[in-house]
Amino acid sequence: MLIGIPAEITAGETRVAITPETAKKLKAQGHTIRVQSGAGVAASVPDEAYRAVGAEITDAAGAYAADIVLKVRCPLDSEMALARPGSVMVGMLNPFDPAGLQRLAAAQLTSFSLEAAPRTSRAQSMDVLSSQANIAGYKAVMMAADAYQRFFPMLMTAAGTVKAARVVILGVGVAGLQAIATAKRLGAVIEASDVRPSVKEQVESLGGKFIDVPYETDEEREAAVGVGGYARPMPPSWMARQKLEVAKRVAQADVVITTALIPGRAAPVLVTEEMVMAMKPGSVIVDLAAAQGGNCPLTEADKTVIKYGVTLMGQTNIAALVAADASALYARNLLDFLKLIITKEGALKIDLEDDIVAACLMTQGGEVKRK
Amino acid sequence: MLIGIPAEITAGETRVAITPETAKKLKAQGHTIRVQSGAGVAASVPDEAYRAVGAEITDAAGAYAADIVLKVRCPLDSEMALARPGSVMVGMLNPFDPAGLQRLAAAQLTSFSLEAAPRTSRAQSMDVLSSQANIAGYKAVMMAADAYQRFFPMLMTAAGTVKAARVVILGVGVAGLQAIATAKRLGAVIEASDVRPSVKEQVESLGGKFIDVPYETDEEREAAVGVGGYARPMPPSWMARQKLEVAKRVAQADVVITTALIPGRAAPVLVTEEMVMAMKPGSVIVDLAAAQGGNCPLTEADKTVIKYGVTLMGQTNIAALVAADASALYARNLLDFLKLIITKEGALKIDLEDDIVAACLMTQGGEVKRK
Repeated sequence: MLIGIPAEITAGETRVAITPETAKKLKAQGHTIRVQSGAGVAASVPDEAYRAVGAEITDAAGAYAADIVLKVRCPLDSEMALARPGSVMVGMLNPFDPAGLQRLAAAQLTSFSLEAAPRTSRAQSMDVLSSQANIAGYKAVMMAADAYQRFFPMLMTAAGTVKAARVVILGVGVAGLQAIATAKRLGAVIEASDVRPSVKEQVESLGGKFIDVPYETDEEREAAVGVGGYARPMPPSWMARQKLEVAKRVAQADVVITTALIPGRAAPVLVTEEMVMAMKPGSVIVDLAAAQGGNCPLTEADKTVIKYGVTLMGQTNIAALVAADASALYARNLLDFLKLIITKEGALKIDLEDDIVAACLMTQGGEVKRK
Repeated sequence: MLIGIPAEITAGETRVAITPETAKKLKAQGHTIRVQSGAGVAASVPDEAYRAVGAEITDAAGAYAADIVLKVRCPLDSEMALARPGSVMVGMLNPFDPAGLQRLAAAQLTSFSLEAAPRTSRAQSMDVLSSQANIAGYKAVMMAADAYQRFFPMLMTAAGTVKAARVVILGVGVAGLQAIATAKRLGAVIEASDVRPSVKEQVESLGGKFIDVPYETDEEREAAVGVGGYARPMPPSWMARQKLEVAKRVAQADVVITTALIPGRAAPVLVTEEMVMAMKPGSVIVDLAAAQGGNCPLTEADKTVIKYGVTLMGQTNIAALVAADASALYARNLLDFLKLIITKEGALKIDLEDDIVAACLMTQGGEVKRK
C-alpha cells in the first residue's frame, strides 16, 4: 500500500509521524512510503535520512494522495482539502473535538485517533497518551531546571554548600512519574501528591516522598483500599485535608510541576492564586495542564509569565519541544497500530471486532463512528 | 564600617554581590550594610529579605558613598562617576582590561579584583573563577538538555527504548568536571578530553570516559608524568593525535560542551567548522569560551544559532543565568576576602605582605598596582 506522511503545519507542532526506523520497517513489509519534503526537519530528520531507508520524498499533495496517511495532529482546513476521499488517516485527531471529527467524516476519511485506544496491556505499545506524557514529564523538569535560578542538586563547594531544590509534583500519572524520576536524577528532593493514595509505593520506588494524608474514617480507609483491587474516589473529607497538606508543601517548594490533565475535560485547580502568593520569590511552576485551562488559574497558555515573583510556564504542547524522541516514540505507536489494520499480505482490513481498532475508529463512510 | 552594594547595571548581569546570608554575617561583625533597592531582585532576593537581616535599603548614590563597595562587575562610566575617591571596591573587576583599571585608578579607588587571587588552598574559599565556573558547567548541561530534541537518559518504555545521549566535554577544569557530573546525573554517556592526560582519573571518578591518546615516545610519556608532580605541556605530536581522536568522538556526539576558557587570552579552537559539518543534525554545542572568541569559530557571542543543523549556544555570562546560586557563592567568596582586609576590630587594614591581598590589589593611591 501507499503510505503518505505530510509535514505538520499546526503552529508549534514539530513532530513527524514517521522516522527512518519505522519507515524502514514499513518498507520491508512491502509498502511504498512517501514523506513530504521537510516533514522531519524540526525533529532532526532530514529528507536524506528517509531516502536512505528507501522512502520517497514528495510534496503535500503527494503525501495526502496515499492509501494511508500518517499524521500527528488533526488536519487543518487547508490540509483537509488535500485529503483523498476514501483514504485512511491515523493520528492524534482529538476525539474530544466534535467539529474536527465532523470535518473528517465530511472529507470521507476512514480515520483513527490513537488517543482513544483502550488502556489495556495489548494497547500499551500504541498508547500515544503515555508515550507523549512520558516526554512531557521529562521535559517539564528540564524547563524548570533551566528557568530556576539555583542548582537542583545539593553541592559542596569551596565556597560552601548549596541546598538541593525542593520539587513538588502534583499528579502521579505517567508524566508525574517521569518528572519524579528526572528531578531525582538531577539530585532534587521530591514530594509528590495524588488523589489516589495507592500510588504512594510508585513514588517511593522512584526516590520521592509521598505527601501522606492519614485516613480518619472507615469510609476513607475503604475508599483507599478499594474493592476487588480497584480504588474508589476518595471522599471529600480526605480531599479537603489533602489540599491543606499540599498547600503547605507548595509554599516550601522551589519548583512545582502539576500534571493533572484529563483529555476533553477542564483541568482541576491544584495550585490557587493564594498558594502562588505564598511561594518563595524565584520559584518555578510548570503547568502540564495548560492546554485544558491549567492546574493553576494564573497559568497562561503557551506563555512563560512571572506573577508574585513566581515563574509560571504554560507551554501546551510540551512533547513537541523534544521533537526527535517524541516523534520516535509516536512513530512506533503508529507502526504498532498499523499491524491491526493491515494484513500480513499488505492489504487494508478494518476489523471492528478488535477492541482497539473499534475504539480508535473516529469516522467511516461519511459518518462519525466514535464510541 | 559602611559597606555598600549597588545594583549591577551591566547588560545581562543578574548577580548581586551580597545575599541575606552574607549581609547578616557582616552586620553581626558590626558593619552597616546599605543595599541599593532592587539590587537582588534578578537573583530572587527582594529588598525585604535584606531588611529582614538588618541591612538598609538605599539608592545608587547611597551604595557608592560607602567605605567599601561590593560589586560583581567592573563599574561602567556612569557607575564610576558615583564612586567616592578613597573608598575600597571589591569585585570581579577584570584584571585583563587595562583601560578599566586605569579608570579605577583615576577615580582614586583602592580596588581588589578577586579573579587575580592565587590558586592556593588558602585562597580557595574566595576563588571566584572556580565558584562561577562550577555554576557555568552545571548550567551548560541544563541549556544543552533543554535545547536537545531527545532524552538525555536511556529509557525503556512501552513504545520501545530510547538511547542515552552521547555527551563530549572538552576541557576538564572546574566547569568541565561539573558538566561531567551533571550530564552523568541525567543519565548521559560521557566522554571527556583535556590536554593534561593526568585528569583521566578525575573524569573516571565522575563516571565519564577519558578520551585516551596513547603515548608513542619517551618525550610524550615524560611530559605526561611530569617532574616533581607537575605535568609539562604535552608535545605537539601527542596534541595532533589527540585532535584526531577528539574529532572522531565529536562526530558521534549528540551534545558537545567546550570549556577551554583562559581569562585574558583568546580561546583555543577545539571544534572546527569541518567538525561541526560532520556532526548529526539536531546536535547541540555549548561553547563556554564564547566570551573569548569561542572554542568553535562558528559560535556567536550571546546568541544561539543553528549551523549545518547543529545548535550552537554562545552565552558569554552563563553563571548569571543561575543568578541566585551564582550570587550566593560569589557573595561568600567576597565575605571570605573581606576577612583579609578588615581587622577583628572592624577597621580597614590592607596588608600587602598577604599574598592574596597583594595579588588581588588592582589600584591604590591613583595608580594601577596590578602585578
